[in-house]
Amino acid sequence: MRGFKERMRVDDALKLYFEKANLKRLGSEKVDLLNAYNRVLSQDIVAKYDVPHFDRSAVDGYAVKAENTFGASTTNPILLRVVGSVEIGEKADFEIKDGEAVKIATGAPIPKGANAVVMLEYTNDLGEYVEILNAVSPFKNVSRRGEDVKAGEVVISKGEILQPQDIGILASLGVREVEVVKIPKIAVLTTGNELVELCEELEVGKIVNSNSPMICAAIKEIGCIPIPLGIAKDHPKEIKSKIEEGLRVADAVVITGGTSVGEKDYVSVVVKNLGNLIVHGVSMKPGMPTGLAVINGKPVLLLPGFPMAALLAFYTFMPKIVERLLGIKILKKKGEIIKAIAKRRIPSSSGIRTFARVIYKNGFVEPLRTSGSGIITSMIKANGLVVIEEDKEGIEEGEEVDVTLTRHLIKLL
Amino acid sequence: MRGFKERMRVDDALKLYFEKANLKRLGSEKVDLLNAYNRVLSQDIVAKYDVPHFDRSAVDGYAVKAENTFGASTTNPILLRVVGSVEIGEKADFEIKDGEAVKIATGAPIPKGANAVVMLEYTNDLGEYVEILNAVSPFKNVSRRGEDVKAGEVVISKGEILQPQDIGILASLGVREVEVVKIPKIAVLTTGNELVELCEELEVGKIVNSNSPMICAAIKEIGCIPIPLGIAKDHPKEIKSKIEEGLRVADAVVITGGTSVGEKDYVSVVVKNLGNLIVHGVSMKPGMPTGLAVINGKPVLLLPGFPMAALLAFYTFMPKIVERLLGIKILKKKGEIIKAIAKRRIPSSSGIRTFARVIYKNGFVEPLRTSGSGIITSMIKANGLVVIEEDKEGIEEGEEVDVTLTRHLIKLL
Repeated sequence: MRGFKERMRVDDALKLYFEKANLKRLGSEKVDLLNAYNRVLSQDIVAKYDVPHFDRSAVDGYAVKAENTFGASTTNPILLRVVGSVEIGEKADFEIKDGEAVKIATGAPIPKGANAVVMLEYTNDLGEYVEILNAVSPFKNVSRRGEDVKAGEVVISKGEILQPQDIGILASLGVREVEVVKIPKIAVLTTGNELVELCEELEVGKIVNSNSPMICAAIKEIGCIPIPLGIAKDHPKEIKSKIEEGLRVADAVVITGGTSVGEKDYVSVVVKNLGNLIVHGVSMKPGMPTGLAVINGKPVLLLPGFPMAALLAFYTFMPKIVERLLGIKILKKKGEIIKAIAKRRIPSSSGIRTFARVIYKNGFVEPLRTSGSGIITSMIKANGLVVIEEDKEGIEEGEEVDVTLTRHLIKLL
Repeated sequence: MRGFKERMRVDDALKLYFEKANLKRLGSEKVDLLNAYNRVLSQDIVAKYDVPHFDRSAVDGYAVKAENTFGASTTNPILLRVVGSVEIGEKADFEIKDGEAVKIATGAPIPKGANAVVMLEYTNDLGEYVEILNAVSPFKNVSRRGEDVKAGEVVISKGEILQPQDIGILASLGVREVEVVKIPKIAVLTTGNELVELCEELEVGKIVNSNSPMICAAIKEIGCIPIPLGIAKDHPKEIKSKIEEGLRVADAVVITGGTSVGEKDYVSVVVKNLGNLIVHGVSMKPGMPTGLAVINGKPVLLLPGFPMAALLAFYTFMPKIVERLLGIKILKKKGEIIKAIAKRRIPSSSGIRTFARVIYKNGFVEPLRTSGSGIITSMIKANGLVVIEEDKEGIEEGEEVDVTLTRHLIKLL
């Protein structure tokens, strides 16, 4: 540990590194929607068609001309002739005229000529005719084309990390492929004359290279692709050629061991010759002999050889470096539970566990309209969930609640 | 929503379901250690060899017979003949005799005949001879074979979800393959006459099957493998044959749509005929038309057709069902931050960010010895981290701290 001229604080090290490193952003690629879960969107997604993309019934009942029902009531039923029926999934390829009605299922398209639906409950089936017991105004019980999402609207923005609900939304909008940021590939090199690859019979004097499988697992854990480069002996030439290999095949390189300033610690010397070793020596324990470098715009992370120190320094620096490569900063993680104040009352019914979808922002939550026409819009806009237990009746305005985030809160870098 | 005879509370539904369902546990499989990250161990792992597996030097210095140094001091140096040197990674295939010493590097094996190491700082290199300026007792500065882990000890227990540090430990112990619980495969069926598979041009009356890609992504999110079964029209025969297909290829089946009790809601009828529909109708909003069934020991989850309801009901029930298939219950998740009381003082140095590895249990934390011989043991035993910021000097006994869990806390089921 002796020999480091200065040791920087963790936050100062990161600040200096990002100021000086000028890291290259990763490019993007097209992926099938079915493989897009957890990927970072590299462009806004624009709706290609209206949702709903046809006027459809919101209830089971009879599609009618609203004007034909004016004045109808239980004591004054109006008689309409039933000229057909439309089920969900069917096309309504006929037109209704004055005095006519069409039996219609929830979700089925409104036939031409009709502009409203009378709920089944307010009708009386007489076979060829139906009694209408309630007047409806135009567009009553009709989900109108485009009322949820209009073609051309941005539905999910660049930088979002696609969650299951996003995949659902994109499928509803007919999106088959999305443009996402590439997954960072991180090469892993371990150094040390004492190291041998994983084996069942160990010679005296030898130690298994456990850092490589460990760091490779940690790379998977943070959503990246590990590329093991094997072991380099403590020789500058061997270390140099392995680092160069790593830079060819990966977007970043992690090196464990030989990163201190001792006699056989060649890694920092080699890295300095290849690029810019911006930070060397960090005020953290364990993890002091950590270095942050850049070679040709690609990050190179020097980790101590001691396994726990290597892992802790990896977790301290690599996720933040990966954010730079992806171009986003994760402010809060999906699944995090945060306290917030309800901006408006959130209703619930006693005895029922209610999952209220909310927008969380700056310590406040606002419930979303979640029925009727706003189905997709509410899925797009919600970023949290407030769970109201069975024994509670609603959340009052101004009440503090626990919000579970349903997506990562991100910021573009 | 009408028609459900009774709606059960979420917790009651789960309780009843697990009491009655008698779900089949998943079997296990051998995987390469490099693919074992995040898998559930299905058997205890026993150390095959001692760690260290040879007596090794803990410092740079001279390996000696301790008895030869007795009485040595700065004013009374003892002269020993240097008969060789051992570097890290080398074998020491010579033996030292009385009056002899061997130059030795940290981590190198202690030569035969030697039983202690004098630190470089307490020696004077005279070429063929070395002056010993300090007496050492037997085994001073020696990490003894097996002092960290003894062959035959259980190092990681059945049910643990393997984290990067475990992969590192297992590699150190020469474990190439581990026996883990299989990854649950979950088949996904969507029902509805109005549904068509993802396409760019939608006919009037049709709706894209967005539930299947959405639920498949959620299955990936909870660490399982999705198997999409496509769409079944609202016909009992078609639904039945698709469910049977799902049961053949997967460990569980999820069905969305047609799960209520309306005219065309055939799913529950079909499921009842094939097995046992234990819960049908849950007091949750959205998500009421949810059902929990078992067919031939495999779980079948009936979800509403409305996307957000389907997703919320999936999250409410499926992770708990998957725990049963895996045979473990996750009590707290890795990464969770919990408050705890320090059982002992946790030291740190001012100006250095200290990552103290701790054991968290029942609201208390205990720091682990993390240097010297307990390296692997401490990695095995620690389940949390207490980060002590630069401006703080240690944590006092009895002080409340934030613990970040470094592994899932689990319980065998």
